[in-house]
Amino acid sequence: MSSLKIGIAGLGTVGAATAAVIEENASVIARRTGRTLEVVAVSARERRKDRGIPLDRYRWYENAAELAVDPEIDLVCELIGGSDGVALEVVRTALAAGKHVVTANKALLAHQGATLAGLAEQQGVSLAFEAAVAGGIPIVKALREGLAANRIRRITGILNGTSNYILTTMRETGRDFASVLAEAQEKGYAEADPSFDVDGVDAAHKLCLLASLAYGCLPRFDAMRPEGIRGIKPVDIAFAGQLGFRIKLLGSARLTEAGLVLRMHPAMVPLSAPIAAVEGVFNGITVEGDRVGVAVFEGRGAGAGPTASAVVADIIDIARGLRLPTFGVPASELADRPMAPVEDLIGSYYLRLEVVDRPGVLADVAAVLRDQHVSIESLIQRGRDPEQPVTLVITTHDATEGAMSRALATIAGLPVVLEAPTMIRIEQA
Amino acid sequence: MSSLKIGIAGLGTVGAATAAVIEENASVIARRTGRTLEVVAVSARERRKDRGIPLDRYRWYENAAELAVDPEIDLVCELIGGSDGVALEVVRTALAAGKHVVTANKALLAHQGATLAGLAEQQGVSLAFEAAVAGGIPIVKALREGLAANRIRRITGILNGTSNYILTTMRETGRDFASVLAEAQEKGYAEADPSFDVDGVDAAHKLCLLASLAYGCLPRFDAMRPEGIRGIKPVDIAFAGQLGFRIKLLGSARLTEAGLVLRMHPAMVPLSAPIAAVEGVFNGITVEGDRVGVAVFEGRGAGAGPTASAVVADIIDIARGLRLPTFGVPASELADRPMAPVEDLIGSYYLRLEVVDRPGVLADVAAVLRDQHVSIESLIQRGRDPEQPVTLVITTHDATEGAMSRALATIAGLPVVLEAPTMIRIEQA
Repeated sequence: MSSLKIGIAGLGTVGAATAAVIEENASVIARRTGRTLEVVAVSARERRKDRGIPLDRYRWYENAAELAVDPEIDLVCELIGGSDGVALEVVRTALAAGKHVVTANKALLAHQGATLAGLAEQQGVSLAFEAAVAGGIPIVKALREGLAANRIRRITGILNGTSNYILTTMRETGRDFASVLAEAQEKGYAEADPSFDVDGVDAAHKLCLLASLAYGCLPRFDAMRPEGIRGIKPVDIAFAGQLGFRIKLLGSARLTEAGLVLRMHPAMVPLSAPIAAVEGVFNGITVEGDRVGVAVFEGRGAGAGPTASAVVADIIDIARGLRLPTFGVPASELADRPMAPVEDLIGSYYLRLEVVDRPGVLADVAAVLRDQHVSIESLIQRGRDPEQPVTLVITTHDATEGAMSRALATIAGLPVVLEAPTMIRIEQA
Repeated sequence: MSSLKIGIAGLGTVGAATAAVIEENASVIARRTGRTLEVVAVSARERRKDRGIPLDRYRWYENAAELAVDPEIDLVCELIGGSDGVALEVVRTALAAGKHVVTANKALLAHQGATLAGLAEQQGVSLAFEAAVAGGIPIVKALREGLAANRIRRITGILNGTSNYILTTMRETGRDFASVLAEAQEKGYAEADPSFDVDGVDAAHKLCLLASLAYGCLPRFDAMRPEGIRGIKPVDIAFAGQLGFRIKLLGSARLTEAGLVLRMHPAMVPLSAPIAAVEGVFNGITVEGDRVGVAVFEGRGAGAGPTASAVVADIIDIARGLRLPTFGVPASELADRPMAPVEDLIGSYYLRLEVVDRPGVLADVAAVLRDQHVSIESLIQRGRDPEQPVTLVITTHDATEGAMSRALATIAGLPVVLEAPTMIRIEQA
């Protein structure tokens, strides 16, 4: 069979690593695929930049949209990034020109996934995105194919390596968020503008793609309200350890009778949960299916090599003639599922309050919780230096988000409470 | 598209669970597959046995080989088991009749896989075996597709839930192998004849299938010399914990310049390794690829639900028209790779010796190790009651298997050594 001719749009670390693996692993790939993969063209802004691979053998496009219509190309890798602009134009143009597209772009798919998937189907080509979620871990394939016999009860995941690295380092060193972030930026583990990573946006993009695969529904990123890790303090990390938990930026997806539940926020997970042990830049995903039970997937969630591994896995699928709809079911059949009302969701909570050291304070706080039917599971009181504030740590039994946020608002207004209360959800990951 | 018509040969717990998931999850499966799956015939020895599912809607065959040629059937699930006899006949007959085959039978594929894969290709049908390895964990698909861009450096895995359950329970309770095995048999976690599980045979079947997928080679079960867990004593489990290890029945596969390395034996793995935390009936597999780095897969390695999840995943692939050679590359291209000579393999070792309490004993043992160029990494000496034997625990630096076994033979013959030395390999899983 003829070789599959590939154009790579975007030559950052992932683009360069993709060209490198196609070249360096050509023999094993050809053996497994029964076909040769051949990069014929590339596109990037700066031609002269040293990317560690020879580029003179490839046709060069300054304009990625021109690469997307190169008649020799069968498949375009979109590795530019961003939810619109050039990336969107390249993907749309390539699909419209009848070319397969492989992308690592979670933002693009979280925002435009259904439309682009529909265009791909209409054109009879593949739009594949294994590399967009959890780096090299083949979780897209696992949900779309490997676990396809199951009703998926729940997905929980650590989906952002930068945040996980920061939380791990904070725990190991006792340092605060700002200092660890600054170091991560210096080392190149975090972007100059870290917002997508540390505010949970990137992880929320990924989670909503996993939910679309699991529940056959439209990506609902717009309906998500991700919370990030900027508010996590060393004192909370220390209390978590004492209580038998680890703090993770945790995504979770469920389909309930009230609708789709898509959450992304810091959470305390029990040390016994497999993903509590997923540390540093690693990602980990737990899928609970009605037949398979719990299946856990771990690996590097980012980086050039792991991401290129996933990009090329998608290319190999296409070269082998394995074709499925982007989200497992045809785009026209993706359900528009409503989101379950957040205030009705049930969970348990960790609260940390800084209060004045005066008799009756605990009674005041407990009364507020009782009025909202939130019952206390455990309580720690720390620090009894005269004139110094006291730290009150409370974990609760199950309560609704609505009750908890009403209680928090009232507690924040108590005169004895000295700073804004800290609340972290407890999840059985 | 018309429904895919299925015959199930073998109605043990997995066969019944397969029929149940096809029935109970029909709506999600049809949505994902774009086709209906329909069980039309079943076969088992005893018709009257209660299997928890209604059977009257299916055509009944007492002879599975007759089911295999039923002209209405598109796909035969072989869930009988065994490396020859009826299972082999059913698979061969079904393939020869141009029907797809999905099997959970690791023994059959480890012995006859290449021939049957060749027959399937010749007939233009699929022979798929996700359920044969690690229950519901989609590890076959991960190696064949999700990680197909990688050169696989190493696979290590806990592949037998019964053995892992026994080792976990021994560690947690301090009880010995025989007592825990007897309890596992009572609870139905172990067979009346536990040999396949506890002697490493079942896990070796699975490992050699994973190696065939990873390295595109013929299954080489016949060349394996699996060792099981019968010899593991509570005292060794306790010393392992003290040294920072956990004892697992560990399979490992590598391809070296000297040939294929396929090992299955008890091993001490560092507590920090992800699969050290894989406990009880769970399975865990670590795949190291040249691009993806380390990827870890965990889940229930056996049981009706997880196995049926994998059986039906293969059926869904076939219904969706996804077709690949059984071992990822065409059967005719599977390489006949030689096994690397075991005596040249390098590793480190744990030794436990029961010796007489007399000055100079340690010097004698150390001299034997030195003569074989085995260097000692750590040493523990326990028990100094007069007249009582002393336990000597040694861990070594890297040495060849050959040197180690020569040293062991000499040590066993020393007059001061009171019982056969215990040796357990140390692996960085």
